Amino acid sequence: MAEERVHNAAFRHRIMDADEAACLIAHGDVVGMGGFGPGGTPKALPRALARRAIARHERGEAFAISLLTGASTTPDVDGVLARAEAISFRMPYMGDADLRAQANEGRVAYVDTHLSRVAPWARAGFLGKVDVAVIEAALIREDGGIVPTLAIGNAKTWLEMADKIIIEVNGWHTTELEGIHDIWAGDREAGARLPVVSWAGERIGGTVLRVPPDKIAAVVRTDEGDLGQSFRAVPDATRIAGHIIEFLKHEVVRGRLPEALPPLQSGVGNIANAVMTALADAPFENLTAYTEVIQDGMLDMVRSGKMRVVSGASLYLSNAQAAAAKADMGVLRDRLVLRQQEVSNNPAVARGLNCIAMNAGIEADIYGNVNSTRVMGSRVQNGIGGSGDFARSALLSIFMLPSVARNGTISSIVPMVSHVDHINQDVQVLVTEQGLADLRGLSARRRARVIIENCAHPDFRPQLRDYLARAERVDGGGGDTPHLLGEALSWHQRFIETGSMRI
Amino acid sequence: MAEERVHNAAFRHRIMDADEAACLIAHGDVVGMGGFGPGGTPKALPRALARRAIARHERGEAFAISLLTGASTTPDVDGVLARAEAISFRMPYMGDADLRAQANEGRVAYVDTHLSRVAPWARAGFLGKVDVAVIEAALIREDGGIVPTLAIGNAKTWLEMADKIIIEVNGWHTTELEGIHDIWAGDREAGARLPVVSWAGERIGGTVLRVPPDKIAAVVRTDEGDLGQSFRAVPDATRIAGHIIEFLKHEVVRGRLPEALPPLQSGVGNIANAVMTALADAPFENLTAYTEVIQDGMLDMVRSGKMRVVSGASLYLSNAQAAAAKADMGVLRDRLVLRQQEVSNNPAVARGLNCIAMNAGIEADIYGNVNSTRVMGSRVQNGIGGSGDFARSALLSIFMLPSVARNGTISSIVPMVSHVDHINQDVQVLVTEQGLADLRGLSARRRARVIIENCAHPDFRPQLRDYLARAERVDGGGGDTPHLLGEALSWHQRFIETGSMRI
Repeated sequence: MAEERVHNAAFRHRIMDADEAACLIAHGDVVGMGGFGPGGTPKALPRALARRAIARHERGEAFAISLLTGASTTPDVDGVLARAEAISFRMPYMGDADLRAQANEGRVAYVDTHLSRVAPWARAGFLGKVDVAVIEAALIREDGGIVPTLAIGNAKTWLEMADKIIIEVNGWHTTELEGIHDIWAGDREAGARLPVVSWAGERIGGTVLRVPPDKIAAVVRTDEGDLGQSFRAVPDATRIAGHIIEFLKHEVVRGRLPEALPPLQSGVGNIANAVMTALADAPFENLTAYTEVIQDGMLDMVRSGKMRVVSGASLYLSNAQAAAAKADMGVLRDRLVLRQQEVSNNPAVARGLNCIAMNAGIEADIYGNVNSTRVMGSRVQNGIGGSGDFARSALLSIFMLPSVARNGTISSIVPMVSHVDHINQDVQVLVTEQGLADLRGLSARRRARVIIENCAHPDFRPQLRDYLARAERVDGGGGDTPHLLGEALSWHQRFIETGSMRI
Repeated sequence: MAEERVHNAAFRHRIMDADEAACLIAHGDVVGMGGFGPGGTPKALPRALARRAIARHERGEAFAISLLTGASTTPDVDGVLARAEAISFRMPYMGDADLRAQANEGRVAYVDTHLSRVAPWARAGFLGKVDVAVIEAALIREDGGIVPTLAIGNAKTWLEMADKIIIEVNGWHTTELEGIHDIWAGDREAGARLPVVSWAGERIGGTVLRVPPDKIAAVVRTDEGDLGQSFRAVPDATRIAGHIIEFLKHEVVRGRLPEALPPLQSGVGNIANAVMTALADAPFENLTAYTEVIQDGMLDMVRSGKMRVVSGASLYLSNAQAAAAKADMGVLRDRLVLRQQEVSNNPAVARGLNCIAMNAGIEADIYGNVNSTRVMGSRVQNGIGGSGDFARSALLSIFMLPSVARNGTISSIVPMVSHVDHINQDVQVLVTEQGLADLRGLSARRRARVIIENCAHPDFRPQLRDYLARAERVDGGGGDTPHLLGEALSWHQRFIETGSMRI
């Protein structure tokens, strides 16, 4: 089966099983893994590596790697390896519960950074050496061209930098994937400049990855689909989506946005999916997306013709949608572009296309700063991911969050966020299920009023108004962004101490 | 005199004095002013407008404008108008003491935002209508082409949007300025994409501004140079510059940066100037700059041949250098490019060129977040300016600050910054006179150790180490970014209450 997909001799000679391949990775190695989310993420090798780590640990031997990826992986990578105590360093993003716990305990060094930045920094030598690259492929062509699966991530960079290359050829995927990828080649040449991507569907590169044959250390056969995305219908998400659609319609009527809307970037999860579902029924046509993760909602719009083209880093679908996409790939391929994340998330492109960015937050403060990563300031939930790549570059950056959390004990609108991922300048619109705050052109004091009255949960509005009023009365006028520093984080502290932000 | 510079009849017919022209601006008008810092900033009209405001106020009539600019102006604009109580709304940046006081008292609505964003947002209609544009010119050509002076700022956008246009033709400047500007024309067309700027000196536009003759409301004669920049020799700045030069040399030796260095962006002020002075004596050749404000140091390097080309938004020079530049402009012009700020500060260009960004901060926290605008969290000092345009897009973003302020009563390195302008992901290197912290590829806990030991003032290191150690010991491991929220801002609160952060 795997042999059918491996049409080049240099690769065929290296076919071995995953446990054999895992022995090529040594304690202390820096491993660069391809993919972005479940898409394109190797599966068999990481599990074998975890077995190798456990066996060595049982013998009293050390075994842990530094793991560089595109973004999150799947529980079968970060989770399995974390439980095997096999990760000492992790970059640039993760979302696995077990790995997260280790990062929060200080046992894993986690570097949370902009996803578009990883490849350029790695190439410049800022992140040191990469020992082994591990990537997933749908097909190795006779000419040695490697066809990736549902995401490229940083695969190209890891392949170029690594001494050894391990490829998982995954027979689950359709070989019709050939042609869906757009891989910009110029990133290695000093002085190579990313060409202008003048619309979301523009292709600027080739369709396959290439490697020098002497670096191929192993080719491993796998045959399994990606972990499927599942969505919950969340009433708050539907209300948030409704506010956003109303706002976008209004902007089109006022002539501030074109009828086809600028290219959309949308984060991952229930709220993002609800927005896509709502868009499908809204009176916009010929939509495009220039985004990271392509979820079910966008693919539905591609099928219905509502969306002209979707460019992204990765497909992350439900099982049903993944199976359907596999069957239709020969047709879908013409309206989908999967790019390496250096291009999919490139702020220069998002800026050039004047994208609308829609991302989720954990909490926002009255001045419009957003925390999207750290619970109560200290504990990482996941990471900034691509949100910072898009939010600052977009023409219009929208942040979305429910107004309360944990059964109403936490207000997501607080006097001061306990951690800042997105500064107020990168948040033009803030939305909760309560309503939408249009912050464009407002001073800090005005932003505070609009956010409290439109976005905060009614239960917490009096407390927020009281904070703002007292902060504004401080000697000398309170400042342009009035705060009471002795009290600014007291809501969080109260939650830590009493289990509720309520007074 | 002014007539000599006004070679087109449509403009000549509108010549009047500044007080007459000021009457064309009504209470409540939105005024878009050209320029960027002192460069290109109108002088006579704002003073006349202040007189008009005072006269009206004395008669019991209301008079205040919304003032949109490129960046800061000069005391003769923001200061004079603020003292006349003639500004109700100000965007996107200011640095004047009187205006700042009014913003901090909540009397002026101040919107502090990324300088590259103003023009695109304004054009999209996000900021509403612009009633009057006021710009400075060195020359009006026979064909109606307007040659700007030492900065364009957002002049092109204000000219396009405004109903009425007032032009100050300033005879102080040399007409040899014609040709120094590069004005991208495509910004008005929907879907126009900024072309690739493949090196700092690349020109992508024309050299003059154009307006429909029927919008010219007044042409005012002036004849005065810009306010001169003055520098102080600050020992800490020299030490900071020394650390940066050592670091850059080391990066070149390691092959992580090219010998000519990537294009440099450098902020304004004593530290930035000290870095330029130090660079002049360092073993780098063929330097280029893609920056905002061009100060004396860069111009010296252009003259000496050390710097091949400087692209920027504005010239902000000492009086001596300004006079010399005026005399040499015919030669200097070939190695200088002045761009509209939408291009000079465009993150897409900074990203494409892999710039090195060097900006100043007010305070930084142990995890590498930087506050560059709000003193004790609440009181605005100036604004984010272009620092956010560059810091996130640069290949390497360096932030610089002295380790202590106010005679050592304030530690610039704190547990948590009281306001965030630059998130840790946008700060690769932090430098104080104490030393340099290379934060690339470090987890939050590692960053904290390097920042405390390399950058904090020795007097404050024990307090910082103690905070970190206790935060890391919190139940559950403290988080990946350990904080004690009840104490995180207590250093600032102690300063407010006691006048010192020291225990």
